[in-house]
Amino acid sequence: MPTLPKAIRQLTESFEKLPGIGPKSAQRLVFYLLHTPEASLQQFADRLIALKKDVVLCEVCHNVSERSPCSICDDAARDNTLLCVVEQPLDAIALESSGTYAGTYHVLHGAIAPLNNIGPDQLYLKDVVGRLEGVSELILATNPTMEGEATALYITELVRAKAHESLRITRIGHGLPIGADIEYADSMTLKRAMEGRREL
Amino acid sequence: MPTLPKAIRQLTESFEKLPGIGPKSAQRLVFYLLHTPEASLQQFADRLIALKKDVVLCEVCHNVSERSPCSICDDAARDNTLLCVVEQPLDAIALESSGTYAGTYHVLHGAIAPLNNIGPDQLYLKDVVGRLEGVSELILATNPTMEGEATALYITELVRAKAHESLRITRIGHGLPIGADIEYADSMTLKRAMEGRREL
Repeated sequence: MPTLPKAIRQLTESFEKLPGIGPKSAQRLVFYLLHTPEASLQQFADRLIALKKDVVLCEVCHNVSERSPCSICDDAARDNTLLCVVEQPLDAIALESSGTYAGTYHVLHGAIAPLNNIGPDQLYLKDVVGRLEGVSELILATNPTMEGEATALYITELVRAKAHESLRITRIGHGLPIGADIEYADSMTLKRAMEGRREL
Repeated sequence: MPTLPKAIRQLTESFEKLPGIGPKSAQRLVFYLLHTPEASLQQFADRLIALKKDVVLCEVCHNVSERSPCSICDDAARDNTLLCVVEQPLDAIALESSGTYAGTYHVLHGAIAPLNNIGPDQLYLKDVVGRLEGVSELILATNPTMEGEATALYITELVRAKAHESLRITRIGHGLPIGADIEYADSMTLKRAMEGRREL
């Protein structure tokens, strides 16, 4: 039986490996690319190769960066008494664009998820302890999911045992997001919102 | 404000250009790739470049192929008295895997869609006429959509004017797909299914 040309099948295979892209979507992407100019395919290929070459992980905070230490760790204007632990580089970017935080970050690159075989050793987690000198507050900004909560708990216990007495360990606030509707909020969010109520 | 490294932003941009991939999905794909080995990124890049280099359109039927004429047009065992017009290469592959057709194909690479500025001149349509010598039946297997129907009608008129008297022009059968439920079928499909009923 005649099949599709090998180049099409192989590229489809590469796209299929990406998360959230099934066999049909992969095929659709390849047929789309077949009609794009050769120069833009070349550019796409160059950028794929550049990804690993030009991106490094900062040796201090483990965020993605063009150099190590990264521009945040290297910035003397940042408040070094605040350290914020996040799961992913994109979480740090989101906090940066909110413009409310001027401290430093620590990027775990994931959360503890036993079901996916991700334990503390698979994350950049243990060296948080070595960064606590001079830090007055450690903010745990992992996601409010099962995995994120477990990770926050693990870090709390790890740090409590080894850190100086005066260190405050805080968890990022949970509650109703701005613009949300109490009617449609889930019960866990409402429970957290009630617990986290503040004096006006 | 510190942003993501340039290599990440540029690759995200390339992914965003693909159909059905928005900014968030693109970012997710790039961060996924950041954790894959360099060799598989290199392979992905090589396959992107190979796509345009190794795939040609058959000069006879315009299907995608590794050589021209393609393996179907070049196959002496195929029935050259049957010619089947399809919109896309994948349509021809689907008919091939059904194993019910042994004739040749003609791939239009689209359908007439005035709203998207696709007229007969943007398709491999006009040279169907030149392929009719020795053909006894021309099967129009464009999709049962507005565009596909318009294309089938256009080809019928084009061919009727120029072809030999004995040429049969047929349209692929429409009706209920196997496994479907009459209760949930749309009225247009039911209308076609009633029109296309056959003696048992």
